[in-house]
Amino acid sequence: MTLNPQRTLDELKELRALTGDENGAQRVAFTDVWTKTNAWYKQKLAELPVEVETDQAGNIWATLRGESEKAVLIGGHLDSVPNGGWLDGCLNVLAGLEVLRRLAAQGKPPVTVRLVGWADEEGARFGRSLFGSSACSGYMNPDDLRNLKDKDGIRLVDALSAVGIDLDRAREAGAQLKNAAAYLELHIEQGPVLESMNLPMGAVMGTFGVERHAIRFIGQAAHSGSTPMHQRRDALGAAAKLALEIREIAKRNGGVCTVGKVETKPGIVTAVVGQCDMTLDQRHLDAEALARMLAEAKEAADRFAAEEKVSVEWSKLWEIHPILFHPQLIEFADEAIRDVCGVSHRLPSGPLHDAAEVARAGVPTIMLFVQSLYGISHNKIEDTKEEHILMSVEALDRLADKTIAWIAAQ
Amino acid sequence: MTLNPQRTLDELKELRALTGDENGAQRVAFTDVWTKTNAWYKQKLAELPVEVETDQAGNIWATLRGESEKAVLIGGHLDSVPNGGWLDGCLNVLAGLEVLRRLAAQGKPPVTVRLVGWADEEGARFGRSLFGSSACSGYMNPDDLRNLKDKDGIRLVDALSAVGIDLDRAREAGAQLKNAAAYLELHIEQGPVLESMNLPMGAVMGTFGVERHAIRFIGQAAHSGSTPMHQRRDALGAAAKLALEIREIAKRNGGVCTVGKVETKPGIVTAVVGQCDMTLDQRHLDAEALARMLAEAKEAADRFAAEEKVSVEWSKLWEIHPILFHPQLIEFADEAIRDVCGVSHRLPSGPLHDAAEVARAGVPTIMLFVQSLYGISHNKIEDTKEEHILMSVEALDRLADKTIAWIAAQ
Repeated sequence: MTLNPQRTLDELKELRALTGDENGAQRVAFTDVWTKTNAWYKQKLAELPVEVETDQAGNIWATLRGESEKAVLIGGHLDSVPNGGWLDGCLNVLAGLEVLRRLAAQGKPPVTVRLVGWADEEGARFGRSLFGSSACSGYMNPDDLRNLKDKDGIRLVDALSAVGIDLDRAREAGAQLKNAAAYLELHIEQGPVLESMNLPMGAVMGTFGVERHAIRFIGQAAHSGSTPMHQRRDALGAAAKLALEIREIAKRNGGVCTVGKVETKPGIVTAVVGQCDMTLDQRHLDAEALARMLAEAKEAADRFAAEEKVSVEWSKLWEIHPILFHPQLIEFADEAIRDVCGVSHRLPSGPLHDAAEVARAGVPTIMLFVQSLYGISHNKIEDTKEEHILMSVEALDRLADKTIAWIAAQ
Repeated sequence: MTLNPQRTLDELKELRALTGDENGAQRVAFTDVWTKTNAWYKQKLAELPVEVETDQAGNIWATLRGESEKAVLIGGHLDSVPNGGWLDGCLNVLAGLEVLRRLAAQGKPPVTVRLVGWADEEGARFGRSLFGSSACSGYMNPDDLRNLKDKDGIRLVDALSAVGIDLDRAREAGAQLKNAAAYLELHIEQGPVLESMNLPMGAVMGTFGVERHAIRFIGQAAHSGSTPMHQRRDALGAAAKLALEIREIAKRNGGVCTVGKVETKPGIVTAVVGQCDMTLDQRHLDAEALARMLAEAKEAADRFAAEEKVSVEWSKLWEIHPILFHPQLIEFADEAIRDVCGVSHRLPSGPLHDAAEVARAGVPTIMLFVQSLYGISHNKIEDTKEEHILMSVEALDRLADKTIAWIAAQ
């Protein structure tokens, strides 16, 4: 049996019909639709000569035993955001399923090959992404998650319990990585880079490090009519300057910086802004450059605060170091893409992915990106050309072969 | 009997004890505390040889008949914002009460003198200020107000009815202005100008014209990690530029411009801002300069929208033309202030006041400002030095004498 990428496309559409509605995909982790999704997926797996198990974090593992216990992992996630797209996450799993079918049909491979469907990559319900993969990597702390609540007030720990997951045992899933020798993940880009370059696919160099901070400027609320311009302590003035400056910092350092939220208090038309809260998200593939971007933003914030006679406070929301993928696997990915598409391109991943968790657990890791139309994801209009989807299944298949041969030879 | 400014100070403190709590003044119009305030005030008036009536808009008029029916009006308001200050509005009424006492004690004045306490100057409960004075001036449209609701969902029309005011008859209060020949109002500045110049008092030239608009920039929400800087359509970028530019426009034209509120959508740390809503409040004493400030802001918004590849929409929230006070009364006010304080200063009023409504009804009008500490009002820390309060009562008294003589001589 040979690889049949068209089957992946058909299965993607089958899954869309089963778990989507007029607003998009509804496969939110730990919900009934997600449970239905997993049952559908396990039926597919049941047709293959693989062992299927669900680990302590709810990740589903399908194992094709090889001559060696050393394992090449292929991963993705079946969960979606509410009103999500038809490709984000599940393309990875279903393309991996097709690769597994092709490998299984050819007999026992030289190394073990395992397909993993990670639980709750999106974190859409409780605001904490990468649940299953971070449980596996050991970077998930149950106490940080226990009391997170969804919009209905249900605690994460209870939602997990309802689907048979014990939060305090979830990190035992880490045992699954024992023999892992490489990890491969295909994903839609979810950004506009490949489309703007008119390229079907790219090899991912790693995931950006992220600095995420809340910044508060405190000036003095004052009447908009009675307070002359030169007597104001305008918190918005400092915030506006910083919102513009972080864009220059990003360009100068080759990263991305975003102010995603601005809140003004008292926030009424007739008052100078006394307090302005803003968020800052900075990302770079290079740790030094990321640290420089943060230092430059802090210096700028101090300068603008002084200019506006306001004070400034920073509080860290979250950070993660850049996670670089494996150099040899980047080479293989480039080759596989060139084999299928004729041309490849290397790019960083702005969003985080389960692959980042596997990489920081010490497993050599690589991702393939396939072009997203309009750069849009997490939305029902998320889309990728069918010819590119077909190419991406084939590229993953070739990458798997190269990686299996590399691991077998070690 | 001579003028006793200390009595005004004592009565201000008496009122504070009666109608304030640990959070400040609670004399919100049309509430029980407001009703109690009016009853207290009417007891004071009952000791004077004046006729007291409440008009169809809830304004309380105390009339000291003079030789002529031509009337000099002195006005203020007893209502406050919630958690308000101890001086805003009631200083005017109680200083006027003391002037009325002094005049009444001297026998029948050459012209009629009337003290008016306006109803709901603040508009704190329903978001519509100057209720009583605009009903009197004829600029209040009942249909604009009828369905305004307070935070408990009570309609303005019903709240008025509960205190005996028929919204549809409120404009009949306009008859009160029939013989009005001049209108005098003392008020705390509610801004930092006099304090910064170390001056006790100032003569007000008029109230600013106001242009108040909502501005919406629409770009494209995008992932903060996957969207390179040069591929963004950042609505916040345009808004931040405009928030800074309107300050230059204000300085260039000698007015004030304020962005009081900024809202970002989706408003999350991980997304480029797709839509940014902001408010703009522009004020100037000169109508042409005000129009120029608005035109410059619109030009700038278009320019920034083009730079950021976003669209921009404007919607008018409210506008009022500048209202200039009477030249002769400004002279009298200057003289009265110099008589009492040794030095005077002319300044515009940023906030609107009941005086603006009386002026646009065609009555020659003037206001006196007395210094506010810290430029702060609408807050329990609102304050004015006692020596300045005493001076302000005396200056109002002298202004009243000059105005009465002027009207009597006409």
